[in-house]
Amino acid sequence: MADSSWPGCAKSLKGVILDMCGVLYDSGEGDGVAIPGSIEAVKKLKASDLQLRFCTNETQASREKFVAKLQRLGFDISVSEVFSPAPAAVAVLKERGLRPHLLVYDGVLSEFDSVDKTNPNCVVIGDAAEKFSYQNLNDAFRVLIGLEKPVLFSLGQGRYYKETDGLKLDVGVYMKALEYACDLEAEVIGKPSSTFFKSVLNDMGLQPHEALMIGDDLVNDVGGAKHCGMKGVQVRTGKYRPSDERHPTVMADGTVDNLSQAVDMILNQRRH
Amino acid sequence: MADSSWPGCAKSLKGVILDMCGVLYDSGEGDGVAIPGSIEAVKKLKASDLQLRFCTNETQASREKFVAKLQRLGFDISVSEVFSPAPAAVAVLKERGLRPHLLVYDGVLSEFDSVDKTNPNCVVIGDAAEKFSYQNLNDAFRVLIGLEKPVLFSLGQGRYYKETDGLKLDVGVYMKALEYACDLEAEVIGKPSSTFFKSVLNDMGLQPHEALMIGDDLVNDVGGAKHCGMKGVQVRTGKYRPSDERHPTVMADGTVDNLSQAVDMILNQRRH
Repeated sequence: MADSSWPGCAKSLKGVILDMCGVLYDSGEGDGVAIPGSIEAVKKLKASDLQLRFCTNETQASREKFVAKLQRLGFDISVSEVFSPAPAAVAVLKERGLRPHLLVYDGVLSEFDSVDKTNPNCVVIGDAAEKFSYQNLNDAFRVLIGLEKPVLFSLGQGRYYKETDGLKLDVGVYMKALEYACDLEAEVIGKPSSTFFKSVLNDMGLQPHEALMIGDDLVNDVGGAKHCGMKGVQVRTGKYRPSDERHPTVMADGTVDNLSQAVDMILNQRRH
Repeated sequence: MADSSWPGCAKSLKGVILDMCGVLYDSGEGDGVAIPGSIEAVKKLKASDLQLRFCTNETQASREKFVAKLQRLGFDISVSEVFSPAPAAVAVLKERGLRPHLLVYDGVLSEFDSVDKTNPNCVVIGDAAEKFSYQNLNDAFRVLIGLEKPVLFSLGQGRYYKETDGLKLDVGVYMKALEYACDLEAEVIGKPSSTFFKSVLNDMGLQPHEALMIGDDLVNDVGGAKHCGMKGVQVRTGKYRPSDERHPTVMADGTVDNLSQAVDMILNQRRH
């Protein structure tokens, strides 16, 4: 019988999904910096028989620009391997015939080029940062409150993230603001939504128990992955906090110092 | 035995508390406009043997400027009769030795002149409107997240209000945003908080059952008043909506077309 505990479970894995910010690199001025050992770790995974995908809640840049940044940092990554909320949102909008009012960062607007945005019948918010002005949030609110059946999509539900100049409010905070204003519940697109993780599994052609998620965010990466039946390992880089290891509801299958250590443990296990 | 139903209960009343915006006047460009009959209705109450106070969640102006506006519209009102959240917050801050970081509208800043604001150990937010920029909300967030025991005061918890140019997001929306960001629960100062209503009753020297609240906001005026044992009547002016009359949890003791009608019913009842 297969060992279901970490790292024994590595033997039965067929695919690995990596979070990006806080696992591969730390964001900050310019492109940010690669986390030591992570470029090599991605190389090792690519050289193994495991499938590999990347899964991010990044919504400030198009995937093209985002992947170009990672490539400049030295990572061997291509756009088709990266799953982010904006393209997932575009698929949902088209499937349901919805025309969005967008409150997103300028850098990600191009992802929505193919979507009809006239006479909006829903609202999509991403991590808009400085674009979350009173006026812009009020405009989004007025669209929602004017709809017979208001629909709000939130690209992720993070509370805050860290940049070199300090903590910054994330999209989840504005999602809660609009939920309260309009007395509705938003649909989250991106981690920790099961729909989002399942689209990555589909792309790999794997069942949940055959895949492992590695991330720095206990709730959105590890919790989300485990909720849909995958394994989840947390790294002690990025937004990791020691208190994560005694979280009341989410327990990682394993906690490792960084991606490099996680990959070495996985590959060693598979050799024996 | 006293009749406890409206308007029979008017016979045993000793005081009336009036909401202001949407009951006395409609806000908008300049000073806004008095609601027909409301100036005369206030005169009639002042000429009666009932005590009268005004209770508002207005936090965009100091009481002095706010009352001056009402006087220009023709109302016989003085500052000492008006209860608003900012002075109530100042009392709480002083009592608990708290030094606020303020995120409020410029017009109300003077209310906090007497409060020590150095090295803040709590945050106070009011209806800051355009001042609710991403930067300003992020600054307030960083103060809170940096505190051992974060304390957030919200001057009211309204979702939105109506101005001549459309609906505008109110302070409650930003309260929910910061609550989620910091995983805390704000302390609301102003309606519908019982503490706030009790401070008005104390000033009149009355018990809750001896007083009647008249407002246009079913939840914050009528619901808040009834929750602390007062009578609550809703007017069909201001933000009143027909759906208020079949609200799932709050039922007014009476619903009347406007303040003028409410006051005539009260005074007629007391004559018989």
